[in-house]
Amino acid sequence: MDDNLLAASIPMKWVGPIKISGNVADIETAVPLATFESPLWPSVQRGAKISMATETGVTATLIDERMTRSILLEAATAASAYVAVRQITSSTAQLREVAATSSRFIELVGMRPEVIGNLIFLRFEFTTGDASGHNMVTLAADLLMRHILETVPGVSYGSISGNYCTDKKASAVNGILGRGKNVVAELLVPRATVADVLRTSAARIATLNVRKNLIGSIVAGGIRTANAHYANMLLAFYLATGQDAANIVEGSQGITHVEDRDGDLYFSCTLPNLIVGSVGNGKRLDFVEANLTRLGCREVRDVGDGARRLAVIAAATVLCGELSLLAAQTNPGELMQAHVRLERELVSGH
Amino acid sequence: MDDNLLAASIPMKWVGPIKISGNVADIETAVPLATFESPLWPSVQRGAKISMATETGVTATLIDERMTRSILLEAATAASAYVAVRQITSSTAQLREVAATSSRFIELVGMRPEVIGNLIFLRFEFTTGDASGHNMVTLAADLLMRHILETVPGVSYGSISGNYCTDKKASAVNGILGRGKNVVAELLVPRATVADVLRTSAARIATLNVRKNLIGSIVAGGIRTANAHYANMLLAFYLATGQDAANIVEGSQGITHVEDRDGDLYFSCTLPNLIVGSVGNGKRLDFVEANLTRLGCREVRDVGDGARRLAVIAAATVLCGELSLLAAQTNPGELMQAHVRLERELVSGH
Amino acid sequence: MDDNLLAASIPMKWVGPIKISGNVADIETAVPLATFESPLWPSVQRGAKISMATETGVTATLIDERMTRSILLEAATAASAYVAVRQITSSTAQLREVAATSSRFIELVGMRPEVIGNLIFLRFEFTTGDASGHNMVTLAADLLMRHILETVPGVSYGSISGNYCTDKKASAVNGILGRGKNVVAELLVPRATVADVLRTSAARIATLNVRKNLIGSIVAGGIRTANAHYANMLLAFYLATGQDAANIVEGSQGITHVEDRDGDLYFSCTLPNLIVGSVGNGKRLDFVEANLTRLGCREVRDVGDGARRLAVIAAATVLCGELSLLAAQTNPGELMQAHVRLERELVSGH
Amino acid sequence: MDDNLLAASIPMKWVGPIKISGNVADIETAVPLATFESPLWPSVQRGAKISMATETGVTATLIDERMTRSILLEAATAASAYVAVRQITSSTAQLREVAATSSRFIELVGMRPEVIGNLIFLRFEFTTGDASGHNMVTLAADLLMRHILETVPGVSYGSISGNYCTDKKASAVNGILGRGKNVVAELLVPRATVADVLRTSAARIATLNVRKNLIGSIVAGGIRTANAHYANMLLAFYLATGQDAANIVEGSQGITHVEDRDGDLYFSCTLPNLIVGSVGNGKRLDFVEANLTRLGCREVRDVGDGARRLAVIAAATVLCGELSLLAAQTNPGELMQAHVRLERELVSGH
Repeated sequence: MDDNLLAASIPMKWVGPIKISGNVADIETAVPLATFESPLWPSVQRGAKISMATETGVTATLIDERMTRSILLEAATAASAYVAVRQITSSTAQLREVAATSSRFIELVGMRPEVIGNLIFLRFEFTTGDASGHNMVTLAADLLMRHILETVPGVSYGSISGNYCTDKKASAVNGILGRGKNVVAELLVPRATVADVLRTSAARIATLNVRKNLIGSIVAGGIRTANAHYANMLLAFYLATGQDAANIVEGSQGITHVEDRDGDLYFSCTLPNLIVGSVGNGKRLDFVEANLTRLGCREVRDVGDGARRLAVIAAATVLCGELSLLAAQTNPGELMQAHVRLERELVSGH
Repeated sequence: MDDNLLAASIPMKWVGPIKISGNVADIETAVPLATFESPLWPSVQRGAKISMATETGVTATLIDERMTRSILLEAATAASAYVAVRQITSSTAQLREVAATSSRFIELVGMRPEVIGNLIFLRFEFTTGDASGHNMVTLAADLLMRHILETVPGVSYGSISGNYCTDKKASAVNGILGRGKNVVAELLVPRATVADVLRTSAARIATLNVRKNLIGSIVAGGIRTANAHYANMLLAFYLATGQDAANIVEGSQGITHVEDRDGDLYFSCTLPNLIVGSVGNGKRLDFVEANLTRLGCREVRDVGDGARRLAVIAAATVLCGELSLLAAQTNPGELMQAHVRLERELVSGH
Repeated sequence: MDDNLLAASIPMKWVGPIKISGNVADIETAVPLATFESPLWPSVQRGAKISMATETGVTATLIDERMTRSILLEAATAASAYVAVRQITSSTAQLREVAATSSRFIELVGMRPEVIGNLIFLRFEFTTGDASGHNMVTLAADLLMRHILETVPGVSYGSISGNYCTDKKASAVNGILGRGKNVVAELLVPRATVADVLRTSAARIATLNVRKNLIGSIVAGGIRTANAHYANMLLAFYLATGQDAANIVEGSQGITHVEDRDGDLYFSCTLPNLIVGSVGNGKRLDFVEANLTRLGCREVRDVGDGARRLAVIAAATVLCGELSLLAAQTNPGELMQAHVRLERELVSGH
Repeated sequence: MDDNLLAASIPMKWVGPIKISGNVADIETAVPLATFESPLWPSVQRGAKISMATETGVTATLIDERMTRSILLEAATAASAYVAVRQITSSTAQLREVAATSSRFIELVGMRPEVIGNLIFLRFEFTTGDASGHNMVTLAADLLMRHILETVPGVSYGSISGNYCTDKKASAVNGILGRGKNVVAELLVPRATVADVLRTSAARIATLNVRKNLIGSIVAGGIRTANAHYANMLLAFYLATGQDAANIVEGSQGITHVEDRDGDLYFSCTLPNLIVGSVGNGKRLDFVEANLTRLGCREVRDVGDGARRLAVIAAATVLCGELSLLAAQTNPGELMQAHVRLERELVSGH
């Protein structure tokens, strides 16, 4: 292996400011987006502009937070697996203590077993402070696994991860049982702003959302996903803030819900699986430090506040880009013209 | 917006070499991986080492290639939608000509309509030369949409993208109908190498694959996905080669299939949705140019060869990382020990 | 085994008439529904009444028809699997001849291979005349399998069915690639009828459909399904007409799409997987004969007309029940009151 | 509507006996199967014969039981929806009392809210005694909805059912959160019996199960489903015992897991969504009464025992049919020959 550490320099810009309110933060902040796809910047910028033109901006509500790891245990039969599961679930208090020994920032907050034939998939749910928690939950799961193997008769090691966690895979479980921060971002855009800035109407965006994001995603065999391009904004934000960006796989599984409220536009993005942290892997890099600091995620505060602030900013950023693209797609040709215009500007050095 | 273009400097290393054979390339090449998750490098390295220890290395077979965009049309009724669809599908030759006017590298190779109530989702399939083709297919779809609106009575504009494409969303359609390069990477590892380098056996890896990647993914409500962590390798390779890395969402939906062949290990990764290009957005950046050149994807050859070469290298890289992680998870504690050891090395400057 | 053939006597009623138009039939017909759930009868009856109150009734458009079986072949490697697949797909004409020898009513109309590691899933698509075709396609697949094993080197028997067909399983493939009759049923209900008969409005039904059938199904991790209760109507109709009612599994995976058209209600049910036949297993039973005859599916006509007529009647029946339930659920308490009233009537002998 | 109540006489046979053990019942019982597909009887019969040839027979373990209904509430914003959800989840004790007023057999045992934009999907979980519980949970949900609308500010009626229940729809939620009885049926078949009765080997069945039921289902875009034909056995058993057979949609979403244990065959069927009752709609019909009585589900015992007994018998029946079909498919041509032979016997009056 080449020992020289190189760098992939992904183009990055600060876009915004976005006005954000809600149960985690009331702020106006620009956001850093690292991407090869330069049209993303003006797209998010347009949404940000709209947020600033409203009174409360994007309201981002944190609904839940937890990080998960599932272990896999093997029993001889389902009958004995069931006995083991009953013993495990009845010793929750002890398991919480075991988990707590692995880190002072981790707490076991839930557990869900599934018995499939003679196999047990045991999904642990933790809070992990300001870390996204990938490594913390693996370490805790390792201790929990050992404890179970020592105290519960009739089960043996299957795998430290049984894919029921599930990390970076397209599935339903993370949306239904929770993994990462669950945030709903929403924005009420006055009719005039919809017309002037977005050159469309609430009715047309609502109709497009039903046809494209809801029906189109269902027709595509989508799983718990109904949006136009959450993955784009998440990738750019995750890269700029040192996140494990492979988590856009589940992060992108969110739902855009739109209502035409007498001409005003109610626009919401529900993102149940934002896996972000303000500490941990990748956060010590200079540009990441600088970005997290500028976003206000590095100030002294309660444990977990940094990660929660990141999550609501991520969600608001997603909303800005999603709103902009959907608005554009209500107008025939607009998307293509924007692309062509941007390409020209890039070539001519603008 | 801040006009100063900044950069997110993602740590990058060359890992390998990997030995690759198959219907696209017979090479030994190191691969660049950009990631915040440093344990990925030694993980892929271990797989690469195994590929070098075998005669043919990773055989990567390109099965198919196409890039898609679906438009959304509206009719008054399903009855009239059906009439329109029949007219559209009977004018394929003309539509191919229209598509061809948008670029000399694009070709319309397939088309699939779905009528849902009064709505038509029309999925176009193209080949796009050495480009991943996101913009090319949007431009072509724009022209095709105009042509259809002008020539087919009874339909009106719904959306330039109807989410039946589908781009960067967790769904079944891309796997079933195809989007991007469909590549199968496979490796036959002799029993001794499995024991010595991976410290496990073919039987144990095969059993783990069934329980974790197949059953575990099904239990998680996964959709057309059965692997441990394709997303990690794809993200790192895509970032290092200037790809639109948000396409790891569908790219990660692949299937690991393992067989114990009398103690030897047959290990395969099927990746139906590798969306990569050797030209286009992001490919002119210095580090990307350098990486693509070192990978041999910039030499003069037939149209499309650069992208195909990228795809098989990506698939082989995925196999190396997948094999290494699965092997590790057959051994209790190994994953955690590796993490802890790596963290220590990083802290102590190794 | 008890050799005496007994009977499960499922309560059955004729409901309707339903007015049906479209590219298969222009009729007014009652429909037989066999069910333990008696509230289904008045529910479908209400929808039927509405169909009669409109000019064209339910328009049922047959979009496509095909029946499938996938075989599973094994190769040594993906590389050799790919070679085999190319040979197979290039010999389509010959395979069509082989298939034709199995029955004069069967025709091979499509084929789709998937290579997963060293495995080949080969999905055959046939038309099967007036039969639903389960047995016909198995027989044809058996012959095709033999022919392939004899003529294509490097592949061996995996399974006569590889679950990529897929029969009676919740999946995306049948909706995307087609299995059974694909029928869209639609109805335009004047504003006054919506108010008088359904005691609601087009706007309220459209809103409920978005929230419940589209968003609710997505939240539930639904796969290509967006409706309230297609399974109920299909089960009752299938049992009454001698169908293999286990096919309601895929049959129930359809999409309800509703539009508020200036107060009038556009209501559509898209059913891509109606697997029905007017001949074959179960069709010789007296009550089935009688029912098929009364439905006009036993008269002399072109091959396949009987099955197609059944399919559009099934789709129209589904629409009637779906419309009625959705309308009821727009009104708080109505569903429960209807249930309670029906139970009382049943108890008191009405 | 035709007021004359007719009947669909579905052919029915008693098959077995099946030997069943486990945490619910230790019995040998034949099972009634009503179906148009006569090959099902000998198929289940073969599995039953194998169960009798083993010491403990099919072990059927009841893992969990609950019945669900989700209501849909509307708020002005996600922020206010979240406030409402917190109030609702903090008043669980009161909601349990409300639910209990609707029936002495119902108990609210769980609750799960999802906030999507300004919408709340609230999934109630109940135990419902010996009833499958469709109507009981709707009645309870109706009362709970009223109570919530009266006591929780800021929410209004959306729907009495929000499709997050979810009833008779192909989804992931029922498997993950539970709906109906969750039963694992398993059987250990000695090597000699596999060879003699099934004419195959444990290794071949295990391999076929991986390729067809696991990989094949994943390739098909299946959702939480991995079996060959659960739907067939469930339909036949549900019809014969007066169940709402449309629940085979979720009932069929189960997982077959097989292991080759040194030549002996470990065969298991996990059925997380068996929705059955020994009282309620359809259970007063003469043939149903007779069948339930013969199955021992009508004797006086603890509340719920009748339904639980039905569930484990259903699961054991599914296992018998699944085992038989998988074994047959390991042998080229066997399935077709069996079909042809049966058809001949039927024609010739056997």
